[in-house]
Amino acid sequence: MSELRHDPIQKRWVIIATERSRRPTDFRHEEPQKQLSHVESCPFCEGNEDKTPPEIFAIREPGSRKNGPGWELRVFPNKFPALRVEGDIGRRGLGIYDMMNGVGAHEVIVETKNHSLHMGDMPVSHLKKVVSVYKSRILDLGRDTRLRYTLVFKNHGAVAGASLMHPHTQLIATSITPRTISQELDSGKEHFLAKERCLFCDIINQELALKERIIYETREFIVLAPFASRFPFECAIYPRRHSHDYTLMNDAELYEFARVLKATLYKLKVALNDPPYNFVIHTAPYTTPRPGKEHYWKTLPYDYHWHIEIIPRLTRVAGFEWGTGFYINTASPEMAAEFLQNVELPEGFFDE
Amino acid sequence: MSELRHDPIQKRWVIIATERSRRPTDFRHEEPQKQLSHVESCPFCEGNEDKTPPEIFAIREPGSRKNGPGWELRVFPNKFPALRVEGDIGRRGLGIYDMMNGVGAHEVIVETKNHSLHMGDMPVSHLKKVVSVYKSRILDLGRDTRLRYTLVFKNHGAVAGASLMHPHTQLIATSITPRTISQELDSGKEHFLAKERCLFCDIINQELALKERIIYETREFIVLAPFASRFPFECAIYPRRHSHDYTLMNDAELYEFARVLKATLYKLKVALNDPPYNFVIHTAPYTTPRPGKEHYWKTLPYDYHWHIEIIPRLTRVAGFEWGTGFYINTASPEMAAEFLQNVELPEGFFDE
Repeated sequence: MSELRHDPIQKRWVIIATERSRRPTDFRHEEPQKQLSHVESCPFCEGNEDKTPPEIFAIREPGSRKNGPGWELRVFPNKFPALRVEGDIGRRGLGIYDMMNGVGAHEVIVETKNHSLHMGDMPVSHLKKVVSVYKSRILDLGRDTRLRYTLVFKNHGAVAGASLMHPHTQLIATSITPRTISQELDSGKEHFLAKERCLFCDIINQELALKERIIYETREFIVLAPFASRFPFECAIYPRRHSHDYTLMNDAELYEFARVLKATLYKLKVALNDPPYNFVIHTAPYTTPRPGKEHYWKTLPYDYHWHIEIIPRLTRVAGFEWGTGFYINTASPEMAAEFLQNVELPEGFFDE
Repeated sequence: MSELRHDPIQKRWVIIATERSRRPTDFRHEEPQKQLSHVESCPFCEGNEDKTPPEIFAIREPGSRKNGPGWELRVFPNKFPALRVEGDIGRRGLGIYDMMNGVGAHEVIVETKNHSLHMGDMPVSHLKKVVSVYKSRILDLGRDTRLRYTLVFKNHGAVAGASLMHPHTQLIATSITPRTISQELDSGKEHFLAKERCLFCDIINQELALKERIIYETREFIVLAPFASRFPFECAIYPRRHSHDYTLMNDAELYEFARVLKATLYKLKVALNDPPYNFVIHTAPYTTPRPGKEHYWKTLPYDYHWHIEIIPRLTRVAGFEWGTGFYINTASPEMAAEFLQNVELPEGFFDE
């Protein structure tokens, strides 16, 4: 079983997931390989359902059978999960250290049966199904009160950590709240307690007034190049109306979100030559009662604001950031916003 | 001039350094290129001194001339500095945001005239000169009271962010303390206030007792695979005796440190096929009085413990960590420690 270990110096949890039981020599450095398009051997392609663990959920054609072909979208556990649903949390100390068992969930959402469809090129109605499944999986996993947070993220391209190119998203549900999220919760709470306003709403309002870092906007959403972007062409999508929780979106809002996500990813693809990228949904932790923690944040509906962070992984950019938490960004967010804003969406972009 | 911008959500400073004035299209994604060994055109090789900014410091042969050949080690400003020494800090607000001018220093330490000498293969007496220059540069920059921290780091290999392969270290001196360091200072202080003991000493003592994660040890230093390592084969070198400040090492200690650094990097090179890596020196911020901040931490001599963090950048490992601050490590630190401990140092390894 994998373990969650706490670093007493950085106050950070790390998953030590050694289930693949690699030998030390498997880690030897190799030059990166170009990923090939092995459709026949792709475990995420239609017809290869037996190469994945049994499905948890799928959108299927009428009459098709579970774990067989005839699907539009499939969800199943990761074959090499970092965390598993079985077992106790097992919180314990080890001298000065803290640890617990690797209890949680690690799932794969295969977004489409099309082996090489970029999310920026998906029909909006299909992408709406994908982002709706994010919502339903977060809600479903939240019924397990051992879990405190479900992190939905996508790695696109080998450099961004995707080991398979077939379009897929992953989610990891954990018994802790990831540090980046808890820092955002802390900052939001501090601002709310001082001003009785949402920090994120204040930022959105200032950006709407300044108009220097807006990449794209619709009636419901705004896409920003964050003021203190760590990486060139970093993007953040916020709902314009205050909402702390991704899963509160209704069908119409999910459709609008699919439109803005498609437009943003299309702009990045065209502007930067299909860069590898990661995106992560930042939403509130589960607020229903959890053992040992009655309610995360009593102010929560007011002081957090869900959003999605998109980070292109441009190979010319790398450095000492891993070791310091301190970033050097060689592209100004204003330049990035202007450049991405000017990428035109082709006629009929949102048509089906 | 570049800018330091503060992210009010993550409470993190970012350097926006756009002096290279790249165009947006310069950021387009390209497949990584293999670095070639262009000795003739290498600006860090002997004879090409005119290709670098004028030197700040050098160890030179008697009779050789500044900015000419005949050196063993050279320090000069980075040609494309993220920060510059000239100008005022210029702290200011921009609505909800905070920013200041990019005042600081960004220097390059060319470690040797040998274009392709791995630090793990350097003679100890030479490496001792390199690590002594780290000390003297930190001390020299600390005389500028606008600066609060000098970060010394090395990128080895293109994947780790080195744009030139000739062995070199960089330093960035800033008007802020990097977040990773301030988190460590906070944790150390909290532990000291609770227990009147150094957190890092407690960790070292526990690791010496458990003997599960020790990679290498000498009378003066210990090399650990940290309990909650974020990356496979992460290493940390600590002085065994409590000391908060790298620059307090005397000549004998610097020599000992060079030995243990050489041994550690050699082990990584042999075990992992010369992986790209980063290292960062974690030492106390300047404690002499600074304007606006009389003294960083009154408890500082007792509650911080300098160390060096070494992170191999293995290309199979990547992921969603950038967006979450949450790490999945597929190699257990115990396995990594055992494997590296077992890499034998060849006979005469420390001989000159």
